[in-house]
Amino acid sequence: MNSKPEALTMETLVSLAKRRGFIFQSSEIYGGLAGFWDYGPYGTELVRNIRESWWRAFVYAQPNVVGLDTTIIQNPKLWQASGHVDTFVDPMVDCKNCNHRFRADHVAGFETKDLSKYDEKLAATKCPNCGKVGEFTPARHFNMMFKTYVGPIDDEDHLAYLRPETAGGIFAQFLNVLESSRQKIPFGIAQIGKAFRNEITPGDFIFRVRELEQMELEYFVKPDKAREEYARWKQYCMDWVLGLGLDKDKLRFYDHEKDERAHYAAESVDIQYEFPMGFKELYGIANRTDYDLTQQGKGSGKDLSYFDEATKTRFVPYVIEPSVGVGRLALALMHSAYTEEKVGEETRVVLRFNPEIAPVKVAVLPLSKNEQLVPLAREVFTMLAGKYRTEFDETQSIGRRYRRQDEIGTPLCVTVDFDSLEDKAVTVRHRDTMKQERVKIAKLPEAIENLLASF
Amino acid sequence: MNSKPEALTMETLVSLAKRRGFIFQSSEIYGGLAGFWDYGPYGTELVRNIRESWWRAFVYAQPNVVGLDTTIIQNPKLWQASGHVDTFVDPMVDCKNCNHRFRADHVAGFETKDLSKYDEKLAATKCPNCGKVGEFTPARHFNMMFKTYVGPIDDEDHLAYLRPETAGGIFAQFLNVLESSRQKIPFGIAQIGKAFRNEITPGDFIFRVRELEQMELEYFVKPDKAREEYARWKQYCMDWVLGLGLDKDKLRFYDHEKDERAHYAAESVDIQYEFPMGFKELYGIANRTDYDLTQQGKGSGKDLSYFDEATKTRFVPYVIEPSVGVGRLALALMHSAYTEEKVGEETRVVLRFNPEIAPVKVAVLPLSKNEQLVPLAREVFTMLAGKYRTEFDETQSIGRRYRRQDEIGTPLCVTVDFDSLEDKAVTVRHRDTMKQERVKIAKLPEAIENLLASF
Repeated sequence: MNSKPEALTMETLVSLAKRRGFIFQSSEIYGGLAGFWDYGPYGTELVRNIRESWWRAFVYAQPNVVGLDTTIIQNPKLWQASGHVDTFVDPMVDCKNCNHRFRADHVAGFETKDLSKYDEKLAATKCPNCGKVGEFTPARHFNMMFKTYVGPIDDEDHLAYLRPETAGGIFAQFLNVLESSRQKIPFGIAQIGKAFRNEITPGDFIFRVRELEQMELEYFVKPDKAREEYARWKQYCMDWVLGLGLDKDKLRFYDHEKDERAHYAAESVDIQYEFPMGFKELYGIANRTDYDLTQQGKGSGKDLSYFDEATKTRFVPYVIEPSVGVGRLALALMHSAYTEEKVGEETRVVLRFNPEIAPVKVAVLPLSKNEQLVPLAREVFTMLAGKYRTEFDETQSIGRRYRRQDEIGTPLCVTVDFDSLEDKAVTVRHRDTMKQERVKIAKLPEAIENLLASF
Repeated sequence: MNSKPEALTMETLVSLAKRRGFIFQSSEIYGGLAGFWDYGPYGTELVRNIRESWWRAFVYAQPNVVGLDTTIIQNPKLWQASGHVDTFVDPMVDCKNCNHRFRADHVAGFETKDLSKYDEKLAATKCPNCGKVGEFTPARHFNMMFKTYVGPIDDEDHLAYLRPETAGGIFAQFLNVLESSRQKIPFGIAQIGKAFRNEITPGDFIFRVRELEQMELEYFVKPDKAREEYARWKQYCMDWVLGLGLDKDKLRFYDHEKDERAHYAAESVDIQYEFPMGFKELYGIANRTDYDLTQQGKGSGKDLSYFDEATKTRFVPYVIEPSVGVGRLALALMHSAYTEEKVGEETRVVLRFNPEIAPVKVAVLPLSKNEQLVPLAREVFTMLAGKYRTEFDETQSIGRRYRRQDEIGTPLCVTVDFDSLEDKAVTVRHRDTMKQERVKIAKLPEAIENLLASF
């Protein structure tokens, strides 16, 4: 039977991801760059499907959520107003002996806002690199925003940042969206896009990276509705990740205590997933109060309050923010989908993706590279390729091609064989059961649709 | 009848784009940032549809093209190898009187690689800002790549660039894709993503921006097939933009003469569109020869040649590159779609988008904000929202709501009125003809599908 190995390690996932074209080290031929990872052909389709599923659930299915697509580089005043220029920092120390640089909290083993606490602890701590004790510089703050210069002069007047989160652009466009979309409170603005964090120590494969992709919803509500909307979105996010096919036993809510959440947040929670390195944040949901619109209003000098026609009152909306990273979801989905199974002497590796997120839905495989089979298989490909991400593969033995499709999680394989030339039918193989059935080519699109729905 | 105004100006498009939520100035509440533009709710859906159409045509419909999604920040050696560090430059001058900075070619009125030619001309040229003559500094090269630093130290060892084009990441991953996807020459790798160019003088709305989104295909071929593949993709790109609904009369091929193309390109062509400021590049197609893989092979020390099993020969593939900007396409599509029409005393503005790219496919409009109509209209919304981007709008007169949907290009409006409560039917209004027909709610999804196909 299909089963997950007792200890599915990150190394197994890294190896599969590279071998099968899901994830490569960015610019690997140049030795890579720490904290940057590229999606290969199947990873690209996987993340496309994740984005599409999210957009359907968080935008299209909602009568009062609209999309937005703002730039990565914005006027830097936005990040002063949001507090990122001052507070988006990690504590950093150097070892004076070996010149290596570390996150103070990682070396100390605890987190605090009081830098002197790190200095106390580190005075008697070994350097993780060279082993020398007590050689650390005093801890200091390091801002994690990447800096650049816009325009032809590199000076303070032209300094700008790569956004550390997509949310900022949403708050800055709150008024424009309100005026052009005619939404009324409650309503939401959703965005998918890249964000950048100059992590001192990126790691755990694609879990902690310097260039990431976020899917964020900012849902604007009356202050007195914030608690119930927070509870509603918290559950909605959990239902959505379960619907994607994540293993239920590996998911849990982790409510933040007061000292764990941002000073402005009234409530916040993580949906954690049990990755190979333990339970870690997958999805964050927060009641951010009126902090964001108040700060952006102060910073810009614009009035970002809302006039409620029904109650004739004016207020600064509260914001409920569900925020998730595409990469972490992709990693959790690969981890959840991974199974191994003994078939005779061999081990069959299968990524049991939900068909909605599987990178390839159907593979069309001529039994051999024959001058009669290949053209017929191409016809079958063309029948399906308009509707489903379909792959065409004509080399190697059919058994090896099945195993390859299993490893990338393709739900269905369609084999065109010599009988096909006579009976105008093909064999459809099911990924999970390996059962095969004969289907007339004329009825194939309908059969594929029904079979995909049966997973 | 519908007609395009004699001179549809950029100002008209800028104004419509802002008023109706297609395009806003980035971080506008802070005074914006030159060369950066955000997509509002309808612009976001428009560009989502453009990307999806491109991906279907250039990836899914092709049996031998795979996708890729590489990072914006890559190992900087990649951009040394590609030549961007040395040659991705614009000629720049300052006016010593007013300290304004200009593109030398813009002020001189011609382009040359010989900087001294600019100096000769500019010695007798007025400053476009202060009007003083002959006050320009000597022309010098300005590199258009945005710079940043990766890791906690800002020095030359940690310098990196924001990619100036998506193609570089494709060439760097050529080997990994070849090995994991099992493609054989000819095959292609496609990518959609952001690129950054620190333009000295951004302008023409979203035509020349500093943060852009590209859709690029790199199609790898045998050297002796490059000419025919180049001709094939040139036509395929033209057919695709015509299929999106761009005005045929505003499109033309512009073949580059030898001195207009990159030194390594054997052939290149632009598909130009007649924007308000004249015919300008929309789509670029180039035969880049073996330049890219040769350079990346030299830079990385890896062998990026290909062994052809059929002919037992080894060669560095040639590359055919069709490359297009999402923003320029969005601008051309809005421009092509824009029509004005006299209806009685009023002027009706309609964006006649092809339904495939229209931001909203169907608007569901209860005739009035009535406690019986609104719940029924919500039911109708829910029937459609899973399949089509559907909008729900319940305020203002029905006439004004129709006009608003016309201006954002919504093909169909579904009105729920008081008769609907009795006859379980709704009125469907066609954007272009304004004709209305009564449709049973139970048959609505089928009717919508047929009507959308009729445009």
